[in-house]
Parts: sequence; C-alpha cells; structure tokens
Amino acid sequence: MFVHHVFFWLKNAGSEEDKAKLLEGLREMTSIKEIRTLHIGEPASTNRDVIEKGYDVSWLLIFDNLEDQEVYQVHPVHKAFVEKCSSLWAKVVVYDATDVK
Amino acid sequence: MFVHHVFFWLKNAGSEEDKAKLLEGLREMTSIKEIRTLHIGEPASTNRDVIEKGYDVSWLLIFDNLEDQEVYQVHPVHKAFVEKCSSLWAKVVVYDATDVK
Repeated sequence: MFVHHVFFWLKNAGSEEDKAKLLEGLREMTSIKEIRTLHIGEPASTNRDVIEKGYDVSWLLIFDNLEDQEVYQVHPVHKAFVEKCSSLWAKVVVYDATDVK
Repeated sequence: MFVHHVFFWLKNAGSEEDKAKLLEGLREMTSIKEIRTLHIGEPASTNRDVIEKGYDVSWLLIFDNLEDQEVYQVHPVHKAFVEKCSSLWAKVVVYDATDVK
C-alpha cells in the first residue's frame, strides 16, 4: 500500500467559493483508475493540542504501490488539476507513507 | 467516513529499537473492531519540497464515523498503548478529517 495524503491551505482562507473550486478540481481526479481508495475531507470537530486543524481541504489517496502513485503524478488529469487550481492554495503539505519494511 | 492520521517523531530519532517498540504497540491496537481500514507506514522514497518526511512512523485509521473514532480514543487497548509507548515519541501530529459537508 502507498498512502498519499495532501492538505491544502487556501490563499483566501475561509472562502467558500475558492473551496468549492478546489473541491470541483479534486472530484475531477477521482476517475484516475490507479486510485484504490480516496477521501476528500475537511477538519473534523475533534479538538486536542496535537490535532492540526488549520488546513481547508484534505485529499487522501491510497494506491497499491509506489508505481501507481507515479502514474497518478504525471497523469494528464492530475496535471490539468494543478494547472487549473494551484492559484487557489497558499500552502500544501504532503505525507507519502509506505508499508514499514 | 472519518480519517484519523497520526505521525510520530521518535525521541531517539532513527532508533530501530524504539521504532520496533512503537510498531509493536500499534499492531496491538489493530484488533479494535471499530477500525475499518488501517495502515502503518513510514516515509516513502518520494522527494519534493512539499513532502513532510521527518516523522518516523505513521498510523492511518479510517472509521465509519466520528462516534466510532470516539470509541477508539477511550478504548482500553488504546489507553494501554498510550501508557506503554508515549515515552517513545517527542512529537505527534494528528489530522482528523471528515467528509466535506
């Protein structure tokens, strides 16, 4: 398994319009066939010191392996998303995790 | 869906012994029946500026809903894990994400 988890901070933090545009862009990528499991999220109501709640949208993808994630990275639909939506975010943090050896 | 993603930074960064203890503790929690999907991970080989690679171990849990996650938080097996393993880590970062409304 290869876990790819992306957190987006919008330039216009709290803008429902920009959030909707980003969500629309993400939803267009759900057709990419290498994706096994996905979740489009927002911060939950949970509240403890260790919880990072500052982001606006999260994008969790699970692939079978690194190679499938690489196919996704260069996929035309993914490239179109970056082209169309990258002006919306101020910051992106990515966690890529693989099985423990 | 409720996504609970935890990233652990060990006190003794790079200690294979402490990492093994933490992994053992995490594996003991996989019996908790509210967990729908789980992944125990470590940083992948991917390398871009936006990728956070500093953590030692990641723990991804997917629950059906917030309520199941709350059952997990107070589960005796989870409490035993924190009791047994919390001295191992220097930092924990948690992302809790729910479906976009």
